[in-house]
Amino acid sequence: MGESRRRSGGRAGRAAARAATRPTEPAYLTRLIRPYEIVSEEGLEIIEHNADTILEEVGIEFREYPRALDLLRAAGADVDGERVRFPRGLCRQIVTADAPATYTQHARNPDRSVQIGGDATVFAPNYGSPFAYDLDKGRRYATIEDFENLVKLAYLSPNLHHSGGTVCEPVDVPVNKRHLDMVYAHLRYSDKPFMGSVTAGERAADSVEMARIGFGGDLGDRTVMSSLINASSPLVWDATMLAAADTYAAANQACIISPFILSGAMAPTTAAGVAAQTLAEALAGMTFCQVVRPGAPVIFGSFASSMSMQTGAPTFGTPEPALVLYTVAALARRLGVPFRSGGSMTSSKVPDAQAAYESASTILPTVMAGTNFVLHAAGWMEGGLAVGYEKFMMDADQLGMMIKFAQGLDTSPNGQAIDAMRIHTPGEHFLGTAHTLENFESAFYRSSIADNESFEKWEEEGSLTAADRANRAWKEALASYETPPIDDAIDEELREFVARRKSEMPDEIG
Amino acid sequence: MGESRRRSGGRAGRAAARAATRPTEPAYLTRLIRPYEIVSEEGLEIIEHNADTILEEVGIEFREYPRALDLLRAAGADVDGERVRFPRGLCRQIVTADAPATYTQHARNPDRSVQIGGDATVFAPNYGSPFAYDLDKGRRYATIEDFENLVKLAYLSPNLHHSGGTVCEPVDVPVNKRHLDMVYAHLRYSDKPFMGSVTAGERAADSVEMARIGFGGDLGDRTVMSSLINASSPLVWDATMLAAADTYAAANQACIISPFILSGAMAPTTAAGVAAQTLAEALAGMTFCQVVRPGAPVIFGSFASSMSMQTGAPTFGTPEPALVLYTVAALARRLGVPFRSGGSMTSSKVPDAQAAYESASTILPTVMAGTNFVLHAAGWMEGGLAVGYEKFMMDADQLGMMIKFAQGLDTSPNGQAIDAMRIHTPGEHFLGTAHTLENFESAFYRSSIADNESFEKWEEEGSLTAADRANRAWKEALASYETPPIDDAIDEELREFVARRKSEMPDEIG
Repeated sequence: MGESRRRSGGRAGRAAARAATRPTEPAYLTRLIRPYEIVSEEGLEIIEHNADTILEEVGIEFREYPRALDLLRAAGADVDGERVRFPRGLCRQIVTADAPATYTQHARNPDRSVQIGGDATVFAPNYGSPFAYDLDKGRRYATIEDFENLVKLAYLSPNLHHSGGTVCEPVDVPVNKRHLDMVYAHLRYSDKPFMGSVTAGERAADSVEMARIGFGGDLGDRTVMSSLINASSPLVWDATMLAAADTYAAANQACIISPFILSGAMAPTTAAGVAAQTLAEALAGMTFCQVVRPGAPVIFGSFASSMSMQTGAPTFGTPEPALVLYTVAALARRLGVPFRSGGSMTSSKVPDAQAAYESASTILPTVMAGTNFVLHAAGWMEGGLAVGYEKFMMDADQLGMMIKFAQGLDTSPNGQAIDAMRIHTPGEHFLGTAHTLENFESAFYRSSIADNESFEKWEEEGSLTAADRANRAWKEALASYETPPIDDAIDEELREFVARRKSEMPDEIG
Repeated sequence: MGESRRRSGGRAGRAAARAATRPTEPAYLTRLIRPYEIVSEEGLEIIEHNADTILEEVGIEFREYPRALDLLRAAGADVDGERVRFPRGLCRQIVTADAPATYTQHARNPDRSVQIGGDATVFAPNYGSPFAYDLDKGRRYATIEDFENLVKLAYLSPNLHHSGGTVCEPVDVPVNKRHLDMVYAHLRYSDKPFMGSVTAGERAADSVEMARIGFGGDLGDRTVMSSLINASSPLVWDATMLAAADTYAAANQACIISPFILSGAMAPTTAAGVAAQTLAEALAGMTFCQVVRPGAPVIFGSFASSMSMQTGAPTFGTPEPALVLYTVAALARRLGVPFRSGGSMTSSKVPDAQAAYESASTILPTVMAGTNFVLHAAGWMEGGLAVGYEKFMMDADQLGMMIKFAQGLDTSPNGQAIDAMRIHTPGEHFLGTAHTLENFESAFYRSSIADNESFEKWEEEGSLTAADRANRAWKEALASYETPPIDDAIDEELREFVARRKSEMPDEIG
């Protein structure tokens, strides 16, 4: 690998640097519990049939990207202007034949490489918010400083497996140059896997080039980015997203093909209707990736919210998106591709009870459905318009609980504890028994945010809310942050690349 | 029935009164989704085997209640002092043979009678808290006024199916007379089903007598109370609870036989160990009810919390109690009896994000596990020490979401929406389509607490938190409260009974 040519300090130095940052937690969650199936086989078959009906009769528009039309026509689709209709079963056949069921997304630190698909779940932070929120400064436009802080917080959290992508929009950087600073931040301030830019084909290309540099000069066949390709639902893929997907797929980088649906607006109101449309749009998008490069890794994505009937605003943590999530997760399993959905979503403007109820009511179904890649797993607020520092810390704590829960029931002899029971006397407590003492340290999830003290002690300590404690927690985390090691020559080359690309373009204001 | 002799206004008047209070919502939730099974058949068999090992080798103490020892000896148990050991399989055989798989708990208003067991889930409010909390007055000892307010709020909520029992401890009423005011409040301020007193055998008898009066003079074989019988875990049933269970079972009233376990203190730390012990204790308790009166309705209860390793305090909404809940729910299904567990539990002292995360992380598993009777479904705070008015309203809103979710995926032609999709053009929104307009009113759960407005609108309206809105909501609800109709003669007889019983006893201070 190119890496070894660049590193200073030799083999021993590298080993020492590696050991210093070797994570103590697994790089991703391996679920030992089965996914929850909410729909019968028969119900899922109906939805699959309906998706094929949509693909065959209505079709999908591939807008202003003629190359997609040529490739799909050659693959057997019926192309009429920009409308592409797919013979029944064609997309499924192509995706099933070519798309990998699981793949490895390599991280700059190999100990942090993640499996995408199968029994693996990967938690990634919030994505795409133009605003940032914390208790001290309130809500304001997000900056590159916020971006870097969030990358650092995700790096520090044992419960986030991934550095994410546009963890917030750094609006103080010109819109056409942001991607350079963002990708640099992921490579420099974290060593976890990350996502590339999708806001233009050339920005995707820049992301691939920076990844190449960051990974030591030669990616080979390694997939090192999983990037977010959103549909313009209903039933449209636009040129920007197609160009980004084209670039990534050609470079064997992963695309998260995500229909983006506000039920009732971008799809019918009903969950089974949303699921069929989601499957149709995702199949079309994944098929495009496969005709660009057979075998290119893809993730079947689903973003579905319900709607406030008072205001038309998207709503989260409600029953209907959970029904969609369970259903589409099952469809993805049947298709044999990794699945992305869910997160810690809320409409709340503050890190209050609404934020927590809605987030929990999204992340629990996310995990129970067996979701493989979870964007927005920490920090999301205000329907995605804002990312919150306190919310980030609270969500990350909840992710730790999900990780523990997904280990399922331990029925080993120690887990059964029957030998401890056999020698026990009714009415005596278990606090001092050998079995309790042996298991106590690892027995229960230890929350970093919850207060379980008595009311009196809690009051004495200032009557803090969870948000107050989370405020303290992110400040302590950032104060403790140390940059993961990076080869000086690589860092230099990345900085030069960013500077050169910035100098080649005038600023664009977003 | 005795009822008709007492009522005034004749048949027409009764019908009018009935119509005025006829509920628009179903009296209980009928789940259309399957329960989540977290443990394999083999794992469950191991736990059942271990429970029988506990019953056979260690046994259960039935303390200071000789009648229980006599009854259980006669049923085939091995009685040694107060220690009762059960031959392998005996308890299961007795419970399986005699305890009903489902029963009806009749309400004073027959439209509100609930099914307990099977696909039914019944949500009941908080139980047992000595403190009350609201944003205006903070935390203070609960009073009979709080008790009545909570009964009224549960009566008004379409998402609470049950009036509960000791919704809070009215500490301003002498401890030996509280039960009279509590049962009166349930009968007078609600017409939903309720729970009787369990703090002494004679208080259970008073509860039965008041129920008899309240239901028109003759209960016949009707079960009109499901009352909470807690074990003194580990492996002890005490005289107070046995006397209450004895009284209720003899009167064909239901007992919720609930091992009460703080893992690591009243049981081993491990979930499979807690599950085996819970099954053993519950089997012993349910067996006692069956030997008192074969066929007496019982609910297999489970209360399990994890422990803070810093303080030893109970913790809620953590992964370990959820694992226990899913496991014990499956054990109850295999046994063929109704199951009680879960709720909206938290250690938080305020209605903040911790309260909401923990409550959601308890109530979601509760519903997903197929729990039949859910105590503490609304209002619980501070590990059960306090009941919160705002928390009550927020939890009740979440219960509405659970009720909607448990309807599962609608795969009817309307749910599939494929005809609407077939005529749709890519890129056009669905807001004005016929299918959307036809479904819009019922498409999405409408939260009574969540704010889904824009940040600007939300700020303009005072930057309220969920707790602030819930504060407004409970005040509006209480202001709207109207007492459900009750026959004047019945009310008079209840009041006379309460006055007489109070006059017969000196006050006891709790």
